[in-house]
Amino acid sequence: MTHDRLDETHDPARRSWVASAQAPGTDFPIQNLPLGVFSRGGGERRGGIAIGDQVLDLAAALAAGLLEGEAGEAAEAASGPVLNPLLALGRGASRALRRRVSAILAEGSADQAKASACLMPMDQVALHLPMAVGNFTDFMASRFHTARMGAKRDPGNPLPPAFLHLPIAYHSRATTVRVSGEAVARPHGQAMGPDGTPCFGPTQSLDFELEFGAVIGAANRFGEPIPVARAGQAVFGTCLLNDWSARDVQRFEMMPLGPFLSKSLSTTVSPWIVTAEALAPFAAPAFARLPGDPEPLPYLMAAADQASGGLDVALECWMTTPRMRAEGTAPARIVATNLKHLHWTLAQMVAHHTSNGCDLRPGDVLGTGTVSGPEHEGRACLAEVVVEDGGLTLPNGERRSFLEDGDEVWFTGRASRDGFVPIGFGECRARIKPARPFPTA
Amino acid sequence: MTHDRLDETHDPARRSWVASAQAPGTDFPIQNLPLGVFSRGGGERRGGIAIGDQVLDLAAALAAGLLEGEAGEAAEAASGPVLNPLLALGRGASRALRRRVSAILAEGSADQAKASACLMPMDQVALHLPMAVGNFTDFMASRFHTARMGAKRDPGNPLPPAFLHLPIAYHSRATTVRVSGEAVARPHGQAMGPDGTPCFGPTQSLDFELEFGAVIGAANRFGEPIPVARAGQAVFGTCLLNDWSARDVQRFEMMPLGPFLSKSLSTTVSPWIVTAEALAPFAAPAFARLPGDPEPLPYLMAAADQASGGLDVALECWMTTPRMRAEGTAPARIVATNLKHLHWTLAQMVAHHTSNGCDLRPGDVLGTGTVSGPEHEGRACLAEVVVEDGGLTLPNGERRSFLEDGDEVWFTGRASRDGFVPIGFGECRARIKPARPFPTA
Repeated sequence: MTHDRLDETHDPARRSWVASAQAPGTDFPIQNLPLGVFSRGGGERRGGIAIGDQVLDLAAALAAGLLEGEAGEAAEAASGPVLNPLLALGRGASRALRRRVSAILAEGSADQAKASACLMPMDQVALHLPMAVGNFTDFMASRFHTARMGAKRDPGNPLPPAFLHLPIAYHSRATTVRVSGEAVARPHGQAMGPDGTPCFGPTQSLDFELEFGAVIGAANRFGEPIPVARAGQAVFGTCLLNDWSARDVQRFEMMPLGPFLSKSLSTTVSPWIVTAEALAPFAAPAFARLPGDPEPLPYLMAAADQASGGLDVALECWMTTPRMRAEGTAPARIVATNLKHLHWTLAQMVAHHTSNGCDLRPGDVLGTGTVSGPEHEGRACLAEVVVEDGGLTLPNGERRSFLEDGDEVWFTGRASRDGFVPIGFGECRARIKPARPFPTA
Repeated sequence: MTHDRLDETHDPARRSWVASAQAPGTDFPIQNLPLGVFSRGGGERRGGIAIGDQVLDLAAALAAGLLEGEAGEAAEAASGPVLNPLLALGRGASRALRRRVSAILAEGSADQAKASACLMPMDQVALHLPMAVGNFTDFMASRFHTARMGAKRDPGNPLPPAFLHLPIAYHSRATTVRVSGEAVARPHGQAMGPDGTPCFGPTQSLDFELEFGAVIGAANRFGEPIPVARAGQAVFGTCLLNDWSARDVQRFEMMPLGPFLSKSLSTTVSPWIVTAEALAPFAAPAFARLPGDPEPLPYLMAAADQASGGLDVALECWMTTPRMRAEGTAPARIVATNLKHLHWTLAQMVAHHTSNGCDLRPGDVLGTGTVSGPEHEGRACLAEVVVEDGGLTLPNGERRSFLEDGDEVWFTGRASRDGFVPIGFGECRARIKPARPFPTA
C-alpha cells in the first residue's frame, strides 16, 4: 500500500470528546476512523465511521451541515447501502473525509453538540458487509504458510516454482464473502475417502485461514496495467479476512485448476474498512529476501515500496469450543502472527494482478493468503498445525485437528508503533453450524 | 440443461414474415429468437431479439402494445442496458416471451405491421455484452482436451485424479469478459524463459479455447444447493465463448492455485443468448462413460439428465492471418467439434457448483472448458495441436504454433437435428492486437 505523509490526524496527542475513544485497548481511537455500513432497528443501511464504542452516521452528519466540500462529497457517496461509490472516489476523498471527521470529533471541536446528535452506540446497530464485493482474489503471500503446506510434498523444496518470482494468486468466489458474525454452515463436498473411493458429505476437515484483506478503491481501466510504484494507491483500505477452507475437498479438487468449492463455502470479513490513511504510521519495510533468493523482475519492484510497502500489524486468532463455553473456560489464543511476515506487499499484488491489463474495480477484495509467521504460534491455519503436530491441544485438554460444529473462531488485528496510538480492526468472527441436510430433489 | 417440451415455437413448418429468417444457413430463424443488447447511433442500450438479419426492439414492441402479461413483464425486464433483470425472472418468463414473439413474427400474424416498425437491421446497430457478468466460472469438461493436455505429463494416466468424479472448475475473472468484435491486446506476463530464469514481456504463446457458455438465470440462494435433477433449470441460455489463454504465463503461474493472469487478459463471448427453450430439440444423451470408468456419486446423477442433458451442437473455429487477408485467401476452418463430446452436462456443472451452498446469480457465466473432440480436427485450442504436432499449417502454407498479431479467430455454432430447423449462435470473434508498451511509472 502507498502510505500517506503523517498529519494532524495521526497526532498521538489528539483526543476525542467521545470518551470511549480513549478507552485502553479500543480498536477505534480518533486516529483510526474506519468506515462501515450499519442499520438500526431493521432500517436502511448507510455508511458510518467507528469512534470508540459509537458510530458516526455520515448521512446525518451531512444533513447537519458538518461535512462540506470534498468531505461532503465523500460522505454523500457513503450514504447508501454499500460504500462502493465512496471507494470509487479513491484516496483523495478518503483523506478529506478523515481530516474533517477527525477535526469534528477532536476535543475542543466547536461542532461537538451537532456531532453528538449523529452518534449512536455500536451495540445498538447491525453492521453489514461494507461493500458490494464484485471480485475476490486470494493470494498466497506468506512464505511460511507456503513452505509448511509444501513440506509434505517435497521437504527439500517446498515452495512452488513461481513463489519467489511473483505473488501467486487465484480468483475465488465473490458472492460468498460475508460479514463477521454470520455463522458458517459446514458444507457438503466431494473428497477422496479413506478406502480410495470418493465420497460426498459434510466436510471432515473444516479450517480457518487467518488473512488480511485489501479493499480496492480507484484503480485502473481494462487494458491499463498499474506500475508498482503507484499500485498501492489502488488500495483504499483493509480488513481482516477468514478464508474458510474444506481441506479434504480442496485436496481432491485442486489438481490442476486450483481451489474451488473448498473455498466458496463462505469467506468472513470484519465489518470496518480501516483506511490506508489510518495505517500510515504502521508502514514497515517489505519482507527481506533471504540470501540466494532471486530478485523479482522490475515490474514488481519499486524502491519506495521496498522501503515501506509492508505493514506492522499484529494478528491473532482466538477460539472457543462448545465445551469451553459450557465450562466457562477463557477463549484460547491459537495464532499470533504479523503482517510483516508476508513475502509480497499489497502494491506488488496490485501491480501483478493488473500487469496483463486486468481491471480492478472499487469494492474488489484482495486477500493476502494465510498470514503465517516463522514461529509455531504463527501457524495461521489448522492445516499447518496438523501437518507438523497432528493437531492442536486447547487449554482445557480438548484436541482439534479441524473445526467441529459449535466451535467459534475470531481474528483480531492491532497496528502499533512507539509514539503512536494503536489502532484495531474490529472482529472477524463466526461460529460453525452443523451441515444442513442435502436436498435430494 | 433441462429441456422444455417441444411446442409450436419449434415447429419446422413455422415461417416468419421477416424474409431473411428463411435465408439458408441463417443463425436466426423464427425457431431461435435469441436475446441480446443493442444500441443505435451511440444511443441507449436496450434488449432485442434476433430474427434473420433484423433485431426486434423489445422496448418498442412493448410500447406498441404487442407484449402483455408475462411476456410484457419479460420485455420490460429486457428493456434496460443489461438483461440481468430478465435473467432473474427465469425460464418461465423466457418461455412466455418466446411464445409471444414467435407468434408475432410468424407468417400470418395480425401484428405484422406494428412489429415491422419495431425491427431494425442488425448491421445498423452495435451489439453489446448482453449481461453484467458478476461471476465467471470455467470448467474443464472435455475428456479429450484434458487427456491431450495431460499426456505430456503422464501419457499412461493423463487425466487428473478428480476428472471422472466431478466437473473440475475454477473461478476466472468476470470483469474481463468482453463481447465479440472487440480486439484482444497481446498481454504482458511473467513466464519461465528458455534460459531457466523468469522473464516479463508480451506473451509468446497466445491461444484461443473454443468453449461454450451457460448464462445463469434464476438459480439458488446462498446455502441452498440445487439438486442435479433440477439444476438445468438454472441455465437461462447459452453462448459461444473464447477463453483466450497465455500458455507460457499459465505454465509458470498455475502451480498450485490454478490459472490466473493467463486467463484474465480477455474472454470473448458471442452477443446473443440462445435460450434453453430454443435448444430443446437438440437435446442429446449425456456423454457415455467408458468401460471401467467409475459411476459419479448420486449428487451428480439424474436419470433425465443422463438421458437428454447433453446438447448436439456443432462448433467450429475459423481464422485468418494478415497474409491470408492480403492474399485474399479464404478463411481456414481450424477446428470442428461438437458439444456432445463433453464429459459433463451443464446440469452436473450447476449441481456441483452449488453443492457446497455457493449461490449462483443471474448473469453468471459458466464456461464448459475447451470443447475438444476425439478426432484431430476436434482439437479445440492450439496447445493441443502444439503438443501433438508442434503446430498448425494453414492452407496458404503459413505455420502457427500460437497466435500472432493481426490473426483473427472466430467461432460458429450450429444446432441441427433431422426434422427441425437448424439454429446458430452468431459469431464469437476477435483480432489480436500488438501488445501495448508497458507503463513504467
